[in-house]
Amino acid sequence: MADEVKLYGFEESPFVCRVKIAMNLKGIKYDFVVENLSNKSADLIRYNPIYKKVPVLVHNGNPISESLVILEYIDDVWREVPILPHDAYGKAQARFWAKFIYDKCSPALMKAIGSRGQKQAVAEANEQLRFLENELNVKGTVFFGGDNINLVDISATFIAFWLGAAEEASGIKLLTEDKFPKLVEWGDNYINCQAVKDSLPPRELVLSFFKKLFGKA
Amino acid sequence: MADEVKLYGFEESPFVCRVKIAMNLKGIKYDFVVENLSNKSADLIRYNPIYKKVPVLVHNGNPISESLVILEYIDDVWREVPILPHDAYGKAQARFWAKFIYDKCSPALMKAIGSRGQKQAVAEANEQLRFLENELNVKGTVFFGGDNINLVDISATFIAFWLGAAEEASGIKLLTEDKFPKLVEWGDNYINCQAVKDSLPPRELVLSFFKKLFGKA
Repeated sequence: MADEVKLYGFEESPFVCRVKIAMNLKGIKYDFVVENLSNKSADLIRYNPIYKKVPVLVHNGNPISESLVILEYIDDVWREVPILPHDAYGKAQARFWAKFIYDKCSPALMKAIGSRGQKQAVAEANEQLRFLENELNVKGTVFFGGDNINLVDISATFIAFWLGAAEEASGIKLLTEDKFPKLVEWGDNYINCQAVKDSLPPRELVLSFFKKLFGKA
Repeated sequence: MADEVKLYGFEESPFVCRVKIAMNLKGIKYDFVVENLSNKSADLIRYNPIYKKVPVLVHNGNPISESLVILEYIDDVWREVPILPHDAYGKAQARFWAKFIYDKCSPALMKAIGSRGQKQAVAEANEQLRFLENELNVKGTVFFGGDNINLVDISATFIAFWLGAAEEASGIKLLTEDKFPKLVEWGDNYINCQAVKDSLPPRELVLSFFKKLFGKA
């Protein structure tokens, strides 16, 4: 029996995009079911009754929620083109950074932008970006995953693609080449990987989303 | 060469206790290095420069931070007495619940207690506990892990042990037998498992911590 793989989401979501990237990397065929967040489907509520959020991956009828959980599941089931290192310590480090981006870095970036550049919020965002810049410096590789992208790169999709649109819409610039040269270079390389490029929404769509959010549309 | 395993922490921390339980379950020998949070050691800051928090596990010189990342690492390295299911979907479900307890449930419980029982915060906490009660009902097993404790049970150590002391110190009761009979029964069974019992701090210590927190000591 062929695998039945459905991804519930909407195009503008960076969390949904993470899952798309992992599936494109591994060449997994899937159906994309578009959710309308102002009128959530009965399926979404049934599959993710706690959060009622996308992404939800449904594999042969089994629903999985939360983007980082889905990414690990995908790597457990489809072993080709691994997105986690093989060794336990490498895995732990990748999980640490993915969690850092989710828990700490991305919220700090959105807070700095949402606050319209309030000084303390910007300092906090810069501090978090600095940790990622340092990590790339220490590794000395193109990607957080080394020569190839891994869980950490995928987790940082927001920084590589969404952040620029949020900066443009808000007029608050955080990720500058003078402060974070490695991270800027990483972002350019990352969004030009074929599996990533094929998964990203049109930039105009993301820009328009942020313009509405910041009351500029 | 024998493994050198060090755990940096302090006894009252439920996050540190999670790691102790996993190591005791698996029979891993380790040194416990007591940290004083008002005067953090140079080692702690070096090993966990981003959060400067415990627990930190150092295995043969390699530091790992964040309790859920540490638990996965322990299960990857020491395969006896697994704390994650073998199958990919079981793993995903365990990771989902562990994340839910960390991100959503425990903060809601602390908010309800910290707010001294503010109505909306209590309703929110009850809603989260209800999800766990339902999950135990659906599974129909003694533990979230089935017949044996797993990552989810370990993640919920706060609910089984710390919460009662926080309730006593604050006078706000959340986990009542009439509302959450399965969860209360689970907690009793869980803290009586030998590996758990051997890892818990004295109840008086936790009670005194919360009494200080709530200004009642």
